[in-house]
Amino acid sequence: MALTEMEANIQRDRDKNITDDELATLTLRNLIFDICNQNGGGHGGSAIGMAAIGVALWKYIMRYNPSNPSWFDRDRFVLSNGHCAMFLYALNYLTGFDSWTMEELKGYAGAKLNGFTTMAHGHPEIECPGVEVTTGPLGQGIANAVGLAIASKNLSASFNEPGFDVVNSSVYCMTGDGCLMEGVALEAISLAGHLRLENLILIYDNNGTTCDGPLSWINTEDTNGKMRSCGWHVVDVIDGSHNVQAICAALQHARNLRGKPVFVNVRTIIGVGTSTAGTAKAHHGAFDNESVSRSKILAGGDPSVTHYVTERGLKFFRECKSHGENLEKQWLELLEKYTYVYPDKAREFASRRRGTFSGHNDLLQKIGTNSFRGMPTRESNGLVLERLWQVCPLIGGGADLVNSNKFLYSEADVFHPSVSYRGRYIRYGIREHAMASISNGLAAFHPGTFLPVTATFLMFYIYAAPGVRMGALSHLPTVHIATHDSFGKVLDSLTVYTERSEKTNKLTAEGQNGPTHQPVELDSLYRAMPNLTYVRPCDAEEVVGAWMCALQSTSNPTMISIARDPAGEVPNTNRLLTLRGAYVIDEDVNADLTLVSCGSNLHHVVVAVKQLRQESIRCRIVSCPSFDLFDRQTEEYRQSVFPLNGKAIVSVEEYVATTWARYVTASIGMKTYGYSASNESNYERFGLDAKGIVSRIKSYMLFLDGRNARQMGWRSI
Amino acid sequence: MALTEMEANIQRDRDKNITDDELATLTLRNLIFDICNQNGGGHGGSAIGMAAIGVALWKYIMRYNPSNPSWFDRDRFVLSNGHCAMFLYALNYLTGFDSWTMEELKGYAGAKLNGFTTMAHGHPEIECPGVEVTTGPLGQGIANAVGLAIASKNLSASFNEPGFDVVNSSVYCMTGDGCLMEGVALEAISLAGHLRLENLILIYDNNGTTCDGPLSWINTEDTNGKMRSCGWHVVDVIDGSHNVQAICAALQHARNLRGKPVFVNVRTIIGVGTSTAGTAKAHHGAFDNESVSRSKILAGGDPSVTHYVTERGLKFFRECKSHGENLEKQWLELLEKYTYVYPDKAREFASRRRGTFSGHNDLLQKIGTNSFRGMPTRESNGLVLERLWQVCPLIGGGADLVNSNKFLYSEADVFHPSVSYRGRYIRYGIREHAMASISNGLAAFHPGTFLPVTATFLMFYIYAAPGVRMGALSHLPTVHIATHDSFGKVLDSLTVYTERSEKTNKLTAEGQNGPTHQPVELDSLYRAMPNLTYVRPCDAEEVVGAWMCALQSTSNPTMISIARDPAGEVPNTNRLLTLRGAYVIDEDVNADLTLVSCGSNLHHVVVAVKQLRQESIRCRIVSCPSFDLFDRQTEEYRQSVFPLNGKAIVSVEEYVATTWARYVTASIGMKTYGYSASNESNYERFGLDAKGIVSRIKSYMLFLDGRNARQMGWRSI
Repeated sequence: MALTEMEANIQRDRDKNITDDELATLTLRNLIFDICNQNGGGHGGSAIGMAAIGVALWKYIMRYNPSNPSWFDRDRFVLSNGHCAMFLYALNYLTGFDSWTMEELKGYAGAKLNGFTTMAHGHPEIECPGVEVTTGPLGQGIANAVGLAIASKNLSASFNEPGFDVVNSSVYCMTGDGCLMEGVALEAISLAGHLRLENLILIYDNNGTTCDGPLSWINTEDTNGKMRSCGWHVVDVIDGSHNVQAICAALQHARNLRGKPVFVNVRTIIGVGTSTAGTAKAHHGAFDNESVSRSKILAGGDPSVTHYVTERGLKFFRECKSHGENLEKQWLELLEKYTYVYPDKAREFASRRRGTFSGHNDLLQKIGTNSFRGMPTRESNGLVLERLWQVCPLIGGGADLVNSNKFLYSEADVFHPSVSYRGRYIRYGIREHAMASISNGLAAFHPGTFLPVTATFLMFYIYAAPGVRMGALSHLPTVHIATHDSFGKVLDSLTVYTERSEKTNKLTAEGQNGPTHQPVELDSLYRAMPNLTYVRPCDAEEVVGAWMCALQSTSNPTMISIARDPAGEVPNTNRLLTLRGAYVIDEDVNADLTLVSCGSNLHHVVVAVKQLRQESIRCRIVSCPSFDLFDRQTEEYRQSVFPLNGKAIVSVEEYVATTWARYVTASIGMKTYGYSASNESNYERFGLDAKGIVSRIKSYMLFLDGRNARQMGWRSI
Repeated sequence: MALTEMEANIQRDRDKNITDDELATLTLRNLIFDICNQNGGGHGGSAIGMAAIGVALWKYIMRYNPSNPSWFDRDRFVLSNGHCAMFLYALNYLTGFDSWTMEELKGYAGAKLNGFTTMAHGHPEIECPGVEVTTGPLGQGIANAVGLAIASKNLSASFNEPGFDVVNSSVYCMTGDGCLMEGVALEAISLAGHLRLENLILIYDNNGTTCDGPLSWINTEDTNGKMRSCGWHVVDVIDGSHNVQAICAALQHARNLRGKPVFVNVRTIIGVGTSTAGTAKAHHGAFDNESVSRSKILAGGDPSVTHYVTERGLKFFRECKSHGENLEKQWLELLEKYTYVYPDKAREFASRRRGTFSGHNDLLQKIGTNSFRGMPTRESNGLVLERLWQVCPLIGGGADLVNSNKFLYSEADVFHPSVSYRGRYIRYGIREHAMASISNGLAAFHPGTFLPVTATFLMFYIYAAPGVRMGALSHLPTVHIATHDSFGKVLDSLTVYTERSEKTNKLTAEGQNGPTHQPVELDSLYRAMPNLTYVRPCDAEEVVGAWMCALQSTSNPTMISIARDPAGEVPNTNRLLTLRGAYVIDEDVNADLTLVSCGSNLHHVVVAVKQLRQESIRCRIVSCPSFDLFDRQTEEYRQSVFPLNGKAIVSVEEYVATTWARYVTASIGMKTYGYSASNESNYERFGLDAKGIVSRIKSYMLFLDGRNARQMGWRSI
């Protein structure tokens, strides 16, 4: 569409009178229009409505350097409403992030056939420069932002000195109404208020509209009141789709507020300036040509041209590049002086920025496990963790239940302003989901600067699963300590091992939690989850191996699944072989069958094998703490552990046996939920004690009657 | 310990002067002491602190009938802090629930060896009379209570007439601070406020203490303010561990308040009257003998006797039995008059109480699927659902995204006071977890009175997983509609099928959501989850079969996993055979291999087989919509589908292939997360299109080279 003469006149007039902010807002909107319309649509309506916020943040508020997206002391921006991805992509292009070219933007929503790739994914992905965390699943970004804010607070408390604010990073998180309805966000908001994270600014794109209709159809709460009750400052902005300076004033005010995180409630108009403005239809889809043309004319552009930014518009944004370079330069100068004045701290700070740490390898190799004999793995894990805490930048804690998960800590190490922000122990409260998602934010702050740890019962990692998944998808190294992974309990004779643990276990039994707490099927999720290494050690030796694995993993999370029942005697366990995922602990080259197990089921197998041997059934035993690690071994090694010789291979585990079938010929496992009773009774009830194992193995061997076990197909026995 | 003379005197004096309420509170506490101490401990501290609340509720406030725990119009009580199970058990015994004998109470925390069973599980389980829902995992009970309150509101709006309040059931939910930190509870609280559920009373056992320490360590929000902001009335009680009448006054006030749910914030003392009162140590463990003795003496009992209730104490509580019988009798009389005055409504009401419904079998058998040819399963599912909505007591909705999940509805059918509480469509908002847990409450109201339905993307059922699990564990029939289960999208030529759906799909592509939205591993959880039937139909015919399965299931939930990409041509699909879980759709008795698949992957297999046959590789094809259903078939049938003849059987699915290995010799699946791109490109990228399948099959056949496929072990190819 060419301009008429009259339109060209209007354009020239407008071009003179329009303010820089107005022009910038239109420029951003116009680019978003083009990105959305290029392939028929996207979640552009909110992005359009947020354009003035984008100008305020990227031009006036945030400290960042487009020339170095990973500048350590940048402010972090999280797009929790990740479906508005093109908002972030367009700003990254406009402000001059080198890798965000116009060609990249053209990839958004493209078919990507024939190997064509792009960074302009449907939702922001952390691998791309200028994207702090992967978002899309709602609510996650808010929790990630809390993690980023904790990371910054911890570092500033640890390294800043008077006159030397070497860590000064604020966190800006953009949210829509969807995120604010998600439990994970509500948990994280509550914790952020409790932790008084004044460096966290949550900006609410309050457009009053969801995919389905007006927000009032599904949510009518007093959001500001709720945020205040959760311990947040609240700042309002009325005209958030147009008034850049009003937004800047609010954000500057927010940055200056102290003692609490800040919620900036910005009223915007979804799809502002288009035919669907203010309606749910603006949420998703292409924009009408007339509105797009009008907007381009207003910005002094040619409506017939797409993917083009006027010189004035581009200049306005590109100034951010030199501004950002200058900010980093000033920081480097400050750092140089800091190094001179505080050489020790500076050295440590540099090491944290490099993301490397040492001492853990030695520690793990040398740690003696003889004194851990018989100890429940949750106990030995607690002791290993306690030592690692001294040499690694671990940060995190448990979702309450510290006496159960044995992630013990000293009061002085608590991360809270009433103690100190230098503390690395985070009392997450009863917020499992936020815990996992916050840990992703901690890991995302800077590679290797922190190694986040979380802890709760394995069963309650079902609450945390969306966060665990996002960490795995995002290649973020974290360690999840999943306790109570068995029916078991602590026996009287095996109680307190650490001086710090209270003697609450000196009970002959406890209220056997029952099927609500028995994780019979959750391993199936975590063993299937790509990039997550699930390890289920059987004793202290394998616990050490699990930590070796966790600390070697720089691009994926590890889940260590441990038990509260005493570790029975298992021969020949080995920390280094644990890293191979599965290994033979008791070989017999003429064996009739192989038994394989892990965790607190393995010692039942060891006892069962003794009985089977007495009955002249020759067995070999495999310990298999991790399928994820085992699958990475060579085929030759794998076949040496699980031979393809037609002999029976039977797995034993108190879970539903979905994952085993790929290696074994039969499985002893659960088909139902558990039962509220003590461990002895449950192992007997479900035929998982030595007696049950022996009896089932014998029936199976009778059934096979010398036939090739593989040819008979996998069976649940 | 015997009483000294002095103590005996004190006891007699006290016995005279002590009020009935004081005595009752002590009586309840003393019984809880005995239950906790009998096996060394339990979560008794909170239960002790809540005793006065228990007296108020069971004696003065709640409408229920101990002689008939399933009286339809009873008030429902939910113990969301389910670890305080013995609180509920003791009250059930004291008020005279027949099956709750003292012997049952003695089973709590017992070893339960030698087949010994008890209803006094570690956490309350729904199978036991007097337990409305299974609780324990925190936060779930609050969401269940919201579901129960919706159920009651819907029935009262549907059946009550002036002067005939035949449905009058209030919901009382007890919560600790843990539940109030959980995201699922926060979501449910927000929705309850939005829905203005005035028949819901949430009682906060505000003892300021968690397992780990003071609540202030982890939560410092203004809880009352937060609840008010969420649209709740707030009522405070200061002395909640002693003052029964103050609690009664607050609860009566709460019952009379209108237009909003009510939060009753009751300050209590954890472990009141014991040596650990007010501390975290009271949370769990046995109580000290001295405190227990003192309490028993105070109540006029003999401290040397356990599991004994004084005559006066028992009489006080047992009066609830005749009172309750009378309440039900009055209701039955009212119902009789109602039947006379409103015979049609009464007939329908009776049918709802019976929990039987009809018409769906006929409907599903007769529904023609020819017109659904090529239709994405989310579309055909939407149409089937629309018809079933007319004949079954379905209730529920989606978590936003109605245009995506095609769970369409008429505005007049919305459950909200601004429309009507008669509506059965619940706009859940962006609250997936609460949606699932609320649906459990709806199903738990009365067997068969409602069949709850939820809907969101399959990927976001990871948020809802704890709720889905609790439903499965609790044998509650619900239907979860999981859409977007594939990489696919709607094509231009296959758009709008229903008049009600908006034409938003007329896009050549959409913002390809990417790996955050692609559920490559979640099936592993749901296929392993006991009592959940996961069905992944490939076309409309199998969608009908999936609904047949769902409607036949009266004791377990069903998840129907469907896609938004067009259903390609698959021959011989059959709704009745869908119920067998897997069946041959293309037989060849001389086949070299079997290919098996489901959902939107199956049609790629059908195309691949055509090509393989052209290359003289003889194939048979199996459609396997549900392992859960297939596993229930006879071994003979199972072997007829997956023969143990050593020939190759290859599964094809765009998920990580954990579950397939039990039946197949090789799998084509995902090993990584997905990718943000269109479906064509993704199926090509991951070798899941016909070309990729053919190529991988050929390599596999070359590898086998005529050898026995089973003997070679399962492989990912």
